[in-house]
Amino acid sequence: MAKELDLLEELRVRADTVATFIGQYLSKREPSELYTAARHLLHAGGKRLRPGMAILSCEAVGGKPTSVIPAAAAIELIHNFTLIHDDIMDRDNLRRGYPAVHTLWGNAGAILAGDTLYAKAFDLTTRAPAPPAQIKECVRILAETSVEICEGQWEDIEFENRDHVSEDEYLRMVEKKTSVLYAASARIGGILGGAERAVVDALGEYGRLVGIGFQIYDDVIDLRTPEDVLGKNRGSDILKGKKTLIIIRAHEFGENIKIFGAKKASREEINQAIRQLEDCGSIDYAEEKAIEHVQTGKNMLKILPETKSKQLLIELADYMIKRRY
Amino acid sequence: MAKELDLLEELRVRADTVATFIGQYLSKREPSELYTAARHLLHAGGKRLRPGMAILSCEAVGGKPTSVIPAAAAIELIHNFTLIHDDIMDRDNLRRGYPAVHTLWGNAGAILAGDTLYAKAFDLTTRAPAPPAQIKECVRILAETSVEICEGQWEDIEFENRDHVSEDEYLRMVEKKTSVLYAASARIGGILGGAERAVVDALGEYGRLVGIGFQIYDDVIDLRTPEDVLGKNRGSDILKGKKTLIIIRAHEFGENIKIFGAKKASREEINQAIRQLEDCGSIDYAEEKAIEHVQTGKNMLKILPETKSKQLLIELADYMIKRRY
Repeated sequence: MAKELDLLEELRVRADTVATFIGQYLSKREPSELYTAARHLLHAGGKRLRPGMAILSCEAVGGKPTSVIPAAAAIELIHNFTLIHDDIMDRDNLRRGYPAVHTLWGNAGAILAGDTLYAKAFDLTTRAPAPPAQIKECVRILAETSVEICEGQWEDIEFENRDHVSEDEYLRMVEKKTSVLYAASARIGGILGGAERAVVDALGEYGRLVGIGFQIYDDVIDLRTPEDVLGKNRGSDILKGKKTLIIIRAHEFGENIKIFGAKKASREEINQAIRQLEDCGSIDYAEEKAIEHVQTGKNMLKILPETKSKQLLIELADYMIKRRY
Repeated sequence: MAKELDLLEELRVRADTVATFIGQYLSKREPSELYTAARHLLHAGGKRLRPGMAILSCEAVGGKPTSVIPAAAAIELIHNFTLIHDDIMDRDNLRRGYPAVHTLWGNAGAILAGDTLYAKAFDLTTRAPAPPAQIKECVRILAETSVEICEGQWEDIEFENRDHVSEDEYLRMVEKKTSVLYAASARIGGILGGAERAVVDALGEYGRLVGIGFQIYDDVIDLRTPEDVLGKNRGSDILKGKKTLIIIRAHEFGENIKIFGAKKASREEINQAIRQLEDCGSIDYAEEKAIEHVQTGKNMLKILPETKSKQLLIELADYMIKRRY
């Protein structure tokens, strides 16, 4: 617990630097309402785990944090762009306890706010204090990553309309939709920190595996965390008919979740469905999968020298499967 | 007329190269339906004036067309991304005579198809056969340009809900929404062709001015071109309540266009409104403004040596205010 508090404090210091940087960078333009919409979720907070991972990766290979701040900010902008557009597509009206961007500015406003952040992310990446060849590599990583995020989101939506999704298909979707941005964060931190290829690759693999663990565990949290901690209704993924690993596994066990995709259900029906998933072992199964991925991810860091930043990267990986929200 | 046919043939050759390049680049990925959606408008054709301008600019400064093909393709992808998202925002169900992307794949599909093209554009730019410093500059230009396009589109939508828009405000909006991508096309052609700063700047100014002329003239076409040539209903901008330069000028003349923003009107009412705009001189006024911008734009090319490519750039500028659709 003391360790976790230490990690969170270390992340907070770096998150604040990134938030200040983004605030200055996004503050000066017209039309001001567009930028208010674009900044909306950034102000709503979030843990900024991705820029944190980028900065720690840079430090862990001996680079200065200042080398990576603009790129780390770019990663956070890309993350926020995907949240804004995802909320339109998924018709989610709340995000981090605040109204979603499209709830306040309509679909058109939210599409443009997201598109603006997307472009700003690439602009920012070109402003990293680094040789052009490194910048070019970072731009390509972010572009390829963004493409994969779109592919993953497309599959996620498509899975909702399919009768059957296999565990492998689910894991590939999660990899694209979520883990590639963690992989990009760690890679870019390594590149701008001046690391050699093998180290950059190991960091990328660390980010990828930890990111998969993060996403699988997210679905565990959705079912196990009390609502007052969660900040949203428990079991919302079940009602939406999201084919998470937990649901896929339950189906493999032959379980029939009555309210799956039902849109609405009573609190008692939801609790009953969650108990059913607990009892058949599919939540435990997902948790174990998440732990496995995080463990394999941490092993990738063996290539790094022993530093405080490396230790924090390890703790960050562990945090993915310990957090309650 | 012979000249125009020559220009169109020269543009077609270059457009085909870019189309082939894009076709190969976008063909190999899963989920294939996402890429079908992303390619939809590219297949529907379009004149590809922007990549044409980029390639001609590269040639006109003595560069090889191959140096600029990936970046020219990137510009076309950004253009198509904006069309896809604009059609969602403007609720336009037809584009180039084909169903819009959101008509076929829904808003979520169209948002993702656009986002994918956007990211692919930056990926492509990093693949230009050029020194990293040039690539970095091109990425920054495309990113800044995309930001301005979003700002312009935001203002365009906002203008619809305002009582009064001044001519200056309109021109600034058009500059951001449309002309900056022409400016970027010419600049990037110059940069990747190896031109010095003053030449790159002159090309950028050429593209900017010609782009403004293009957009103003687009509104003239919407009122003067017969529907069978136009491929859509004449006067649709009037019904939508778009505050074009023509409408702004007519309001300044004290004209009251009855069906402005009326959504629906009979053919006779539309023809009557167009006659009213003709009679008060506001369509002529817009045409003159378009011609002025194109003329000033062409003057920027004086810095270039006399070549066939320079001549084609001049004809391309003239084409903006001669085309009928």
